[in-house]
Amino acid sequence: METIMSPKNDKIKRAKKLTRRKYQKDYDRYLLEGPHLVREAIASGAQPETIFVTSKYLHEQAVRDYYDQTIEISSEVAQHLAETPTPQGMFAIMPLPHVELPTNLAGSFLLLDAIQDPGNVGTMVRTADAAGIDTVVLGHGTADAYSSKVLRAMQGSQFHVPVVSANLNHLIPKLKDAGVPVYGTELNDQALPYTDVAPTTNFALVMGNEGNGMDPALLAQTDQNLYIPMRGRAESLNVGVAAGVVLFHLLA
Amino acid sequence: METIMSPKNDKIKRAKKLTRRKYQKDYDRYLLEGPHLVREAIASGAQPETIFVTSKYLHEQAVRDYYDQTIEISSEVAQHLAETPTPQGMFAIMPLPHVELPTNLAGSFLLLDAIQDPGNVGTMVRTADAAGIDTVVLGHGTADAYSSKVLRAMQGSQFHVPVVSANLNHLIPKLKDAGVPVYGTELNDQALPYTDVAPTTNFALVMGNEGNGMDPALLAQTDQNLYIPMRGRAESLNVGVAAGVVLFHLLA
Repeated sequence: METIMSPKNDKIKRAKKLTRRKYQKDYDRYLLEGPHLVREAIASGAQPETIFVTSKYLHEQAVRDYYDQTIEISSEVAQHLAETPTPQGMFAIMPLPHVELPTNLAGSFLLLDAIQDPGNVGTMVRTADAAGIDTVVLGHGTADAYSSKVLRAMQGSQFHVPVVSANLNHLIPKLKDAGVPVYGTELNDQALPYTDVAPTTNFALVMGNEGNGMDPALLAQTDQNLYIPMRGRAESLNVGVAAGVVLFHLLA
Repeated sequence: METIMSPKNDKIKRAKKLTRRKYQKDYDRYLLEGPHLVREAIASGAQPETIFVTSKYLHEQAVRDYYDQTIEISSEVAQHLAETPTPQGMFAIMPLPHVELPTNLAGSFLLLDAIQDPGNVGTMVRTADAAGIDTVVLGHGTADAYSSKVLRAMQGSQFHVPVVSANLNHLIPKLKDAGVPVYGTELNDQALPYTDVAPTTNFALVMGNEGNGMDPALLAQTDQNLYIPMRGRAESLNVGVAAGVVLFHLLA
């Protein structure tokens, strides 16, 4: 097994670049950090190009299964590769998945319209996975799914639920044509309490930007607007919490 | 009106210290950042000791109401005071509220057991406020409510719902004695789906640490454990999302 002790090694320089969107696109790869996420990736059938481990992780099953692609690294190298302050010492270079929308649009969809905060995007993918959503769609202006903060917040849910990028302006009419009701989330005159919609596995829910809400052009295309009635005095909910409340009701 | 152009001014040095727990306790004050939060604070009846504004915010109602306590600051000073990268130019020194538990324990409670992430703590206070919780209790090991990250995530909900620190080991038996059912959140043999509990305004819900879950000593004292059934493959939910799903069901 190859051992790398210096962050200046070319393989380490390349791996570190794969935390950045530009290089992820160029190389069609991304760097995944942490034993939990690497195990999830492999369990889902994804094939690591390279695994990097500190000595502590030499006995991992993944290392046995991908021995020829494994490189032992020093803690200094682990610190350099890491996007977290206290890295655990296991990383993998993974292929960027090429996930497409299903040709037959059916089932449940979570559509993210310009969700800026990476933690919110990751939390919503994780929540969608937990609730049983079939497809998550990231619209224009939404934080990139393979940034390190989104990867951390997703907790591996990208290996359980397809995460697709698409133009929501084009997608919403197609969903409606396919008989999938599209629910917006914005408090206006036409909005219904979310509990007025009976549980269903056939819908698309659109969550809008943290500060500005949904794009009016998208809102105009939805079948129905939903809101969460509040007994208290907060003006709004965190967008990830709001998505969780509505999804666990709809998919109950 | 006094004008301060330099971050080295003693009043600015003191204000900056009031973003840190040690000094907050010593001076019994904290620094609040952002026009939205300062407006919320004043609307709730809290009395600012000092308001700092850049020229852009000179026409705020708060500035008119507290003219003698207002100091105009330069953008450089605003940048220095701020805990956010792009500050908006309005700050206030506020008294630390001294909130006690109600002597008559009744109503709905959200108990946070060692919630470490400030964003999660703040989001849960905001969610509790929105859902109509009567009292939020921060147990041992929970991030401090007046750290800048918690303040940001609370979005002013600390002015709508009492946020109290208490020893949960002592509080839980008292809640039970007062006839308030205490629900833990942990997936174990005795746990019930949260939807099995009918909506109610008389309960205490305990949310546990992000990585380790609830303290077993607390868990042993609860009346009932609840869990969120997951249709998908995620192992767990973000703790703030989980709190939202359960609270909006219980307080529906």
